[in-house]
Amino acid sequence: MLAWLRSYRRALLPGDVSAGIVVAMMMIPQGMAYALVAGLPPVTGIYASILPPLVYALFGTSMTQSVGPMAIVSLMTAAIVGQMAPAGSALYSVLAAQLALVAGAMLLLCGVLRLGFLANFFSRPVMSGFTVGSALVIAFGQLKPLLGADLPHWHGPSAALGLGALLLLVLSRSHLAPLLRACGMRQGAADIAARLAPMLVVLLGLLLVQVLGLEALGVKTTGQVPTGLPQLNLATSPGHWQQLLQPGMLVGFVVFLISMSAAQSLALKRNEKLASNRELVGLGAANVASMVSGAFPVTGSMSRSAVNFAAGAQTPLASVITAGLLAVALVAPTGWLALLPMPVLAATIIVAVLGMLELDTLRTAWRYDRGDALAWLVTGAGVVVLGVEAGVLVGVALSMGTLIWRASRPHIAVLGRIAGSEHFRNIERYPAETRPELLVLRIDANLFFGNVEAVQQRIEDELRTHPTARNLVLAMSSVSSIDTTALFGLGELNASLARRNIGLHLAEVKGPVMDRLRDSDLPQRLNGQIFLSTAIACDTLAG
Amino acid sequence: MLAWLRSYRRALLPGDVSAGIVVAMMMIPQGMAYALVAGLPPVTGIYASILPPLVYALFGTSMTQSVGPMAIVSLMTAAIVGQMAPAGSALYSVLAAQLALVAGAMLLLCGVLRLGFLANFFSRPVMSGFTVGSALVIAFGQLKPLLGADLPHWHGPSAALGLGALLLLVLSRSHLAPLLRACGMRQGAADIAARLAPMLVVLLGLLLVQVLGLEALGVKTTGQVPTGLPQLNLATSPGHWQQLLQPGMLVGFVVFLISMSAAQSLALKRNEKLASNRELVGLGAANVASMVSGAFPVTGSMSRSAVNFAAGAQTPLASVITAGLLAVALVAPTGWLALLPMPVLAATIIVAVLGMLELDTLRTAWRYDRGDALAWLVTGAGVVVLGVEAGVLVGVALSMGTLIWRASRPHIAVLGRIAGSEHFRNIERYPAETRPELLVLRIDANLFFGNVEAVQQRIEDELRTHPTARNLVLAMSSVSSIDTTALFGLGELNASLARRNIGLHLAEVKGPVMDRLRDSDLPQRLNGQIFLSTAIACDTLAG
Repeated sequence: MLAWLRSYRRALLPGDVSAGIVVAMMMIPQGMAYALVAGLPPVTGIYASILPPLVYALFGTSMTQSVGPMAIVSLMTAAIVGQMAPAGSALYSVLAAQLALVAGAMLLLCGVLRLGFLANFFSRPVMSGFTVGSALVIAFGQLKPLLGADLPHWHGPSAALGLGALLLLVLSRSHLAPLLRACGMRQGAADIAARLAPMLVVLLGLLLVQVLGLEALGVKTTGQVPTGLPQLNLATSPGHWQQLLQPGMLVGFVVFLISMSAAQSLALKRNEKLASNRELVGLGAANVASMVSGAFPVTGSMSRSAVNFAAGAQTPLASVITAGLLAVALVAPTGWLALLPMPVLAATIIVAVLGMLELDTLRTAWRYDRGDALAWLVTGAGVVVLGVEAGVLVGVALSMGTLIWRASRPHIAVLGRIAGSEHFRNIERYPAETRPELLVLRIDANLFFGNVEAVQQRIEDELRTHPTARNLVLAMSSVSSIDTTALFGLGELNASLARRNIGLHLAEVKGPVMDRLRDSDLPQRLNGQIFLSTAIACDTLAG
Repeated sequence: MLAWLRSYRRALLPGDVSAGIVVAMMMIPQGMAYALVAGLPPVTGIYASILPPLVYALFGTSMTQSVGPMAIVSLMTAAIVGQMAPAGSALYSVLAAQLALVAGAMLLLCGVLRLGFLANFFSRPVMSGFTVGSALVIAFGQLKPLLGADLPHWHGPSAALGLGALLLLVLSRSHLAPLLRACGMRQGAADIAARLAPMLVVLLGLLLVQVLGLEALGVKTTGQVPTGLPQLNLATSPGHWQQLLQPGMLVGFVVFLISMSAAQSLALKRNEKLASNRELVGLGAANVASMVSGAFPVTGSMSRSAVNFAAGAQTPLASVITAGLLAVALVAPTGWLALLPMPVLAATIIVAVLGMLELDTLRTAWRYDRGDALAWLVTGAGVVVLGVEAGVLVGVALSMGTLIWRASRPHIAVLGRIAGSEHFRNIERYPAETRPELLVLRIDANLFFGNVEAVQQRIEDELRTHPTARNLVLAMSSVSSIDTTALFGLGELNASLARRNIGLHLAEVKGPVMDRLRDSDLPQRLNGQIFLSTAIACDTLAG
């Protein structure tokens, strides 16, 4: 814990300070916008950006992760809490905070149980489809505040403000950095300054609303913000806690997947090491801290963490500085926060989630593995059609289904001897010689419950097409593990072959696999022998 | 469809006829008992044993599977329907039939979508723990009808009858077959005749109740049985259908897992081939037929199918004969069915499920793989503590969790050259030579989303302990597939190594894997070369 602080060197400070300031300026509009996505008062987005990153800095292992509000997790919060309480009610806020507590407690428990390996539960295509589907749902949900009315209607002044802000933000995404470079700014600085456009557009919108008196024309603003620090309130019924249990677990799962995928891609860039079990603890504690702040579930955000990284963050001190600046912003006069125009905030949300519409994974998968591309499309469609909660379950089912499906089609090669050598190769790819009384199969997969049935079937199929075989040699060079189910499967195969007087022999069993097999009675019961190599097996069985 | 009928030979008939008769005599007490487990009138168990096996014979692929009521599926039915309607009500019966329809429709849909590979979703330890846990729950639930009152009380005459039947059944299990053999019966015939003990004990109980007038003393009997064929009644509200959707899917899943595990173990004994997608259709249609019969969810039963097999069943004609005999029993006078004593039926249930208390899997797993043993124990405890529905979910989570956990610890070996040879081996197991500027790693697992992160981490770890390495060779001899997620992972690794001027080379890439990689841009982007063998890679990189 805090290893980064003990070994802190002064040289790291400039990077951390500048990243801390940049992320704080990015966090103010983003935090408020994502609070709106969660169906909560904008200021709770700021609350969610102070304690949680501080707590994460204590327990987490990523050097550049920025923990706080995040679009998809906010969408899930709205979907879950919206079923339990009317939007805008006091109960709604309380339940959102409770949801953070349930998710956080679940993450802490998983961390204690060392379940960090679950970070690999989603395939990349499934994660990508889930992200794109969620981005579409979020963007679509912001059309009403952007235009000031339900489609196909719009409220003129609101729509003008919202669409104007949208245009400015889109243009600044593509043109602001080159423009700043043309004005003589260094490339890195220009790129980072361009990321502050949302803050400027929001302030510009605020000025316009005040100067032109747009509020009187019906443009909605964020409304009164309580000053000072948030209040903790958890007085709900036990029924509410029970109702939050299952969705809270789902939120915790998504929090972990999103945060790990952001942290891993940044850690790889600097060859840093993450400890996934400590990440669970860090994220869990951050969500508990978010509950204490009266906020809502938080996670590490890829877009914000990338800015933190690019702005020079070297350690979690950058996040500490961000949190400090936001705390100062909260205790300073916050009256202006009440005047932010909703259409402009909606525009910042839409532009932020447009950045999540990444189609590269789909394109690559389409060329490389049509099944993975299908998983992408089904997950994305699942989120859009069934909602974000069901979308997670669709993603889990598809990831696991793909796994079992691939496992159920193990590659098994019939081997023959390359004439005059000790080499055995796949007879479909090499001119290798076979003998009618001997069948040699190489199993190209680890044996486990997902494929042992298919392996048995394939072996029986091969024996049917080689009816003269009296001995079967399984070349185990590609088998690195055999689980209990597969051990039983091999035992059944052995018994079945023994009834037909066919010998079952193993060859090239790897050291660790052989060590394990000795703990079972398979070697004793084997209706054949275990050979060091396929060549020795064939020579012995021919002799 | 009906391939077995088209190629039917007369020589198969004697086996099918005798098996059909034996299973019918086994089915009458068993069907009624499992209907009681499901919380339904005993006669529905007979209904569930006529149409469903006939329909399965049309669509299924197993030659010896006996489809009908089964203990665990009946337990699930009671758990699900018991939450929605009072036991004994007309609604209860209707909902049980609807549950069969939902499960059947789900199975048919999965069959059409060719999802038969899902039969491998449970590891054997998880399936075994689930079965044993369910058997304990069922047996415990029968203590009340066995003793005629809630523990610790009992009703004298009922308890005497029930415990007497239990003793007789237990003794007949162990001693009846040897006794019959001692009386000169052939071993096979004796074994099968012994399986009819429950039928005899039930009839004996019926006689006793009548002769001694036990009903007047308070011994409960099964009660009035409607004569003739069952009536179809599905008039419930849409809300009921919706409520049954999720549990129905769970029941369908369990129906498929149980039936496939029975069918597979029998098919293996005769080297028959099952088509899992057609099994889905057969089981789905059988459950729809069970709904039409006014019954409840059905599946293939291991214990009954084993008797069918042992009694000589050669084709599904045996099941057709069984169904015909049961239909005859139903249209014959059925008044006697109303007089069966409940304590005796409870005894048959307890003895039947005691046969499911199989601890061999746990014992083997405990010696061979402690993690699998733990999965057994947690699943079994999950069923007992949380109930059978939650137990299925615990089983899914554990099977999938084990899979991801194992995948997250791939075996990777540092290779060295055996002096003076072209062979490269694990330096931990062989005296092999390495060179400081070259790191050779063999990846012993197929690369996919579950392990690519761990592989990246291991490679980075090895590079940290070999800081002088300028070239990294990945020996891919054990890698039979690379999914889209792993393809991205290799691309990231390549970019990361390129930034540090470390060459990334692949060697011994299998033919099918190389074919697939050519569909991606990895070969072009690779910061190194692809070599045929590790030896060529090392010679080239040294030169």
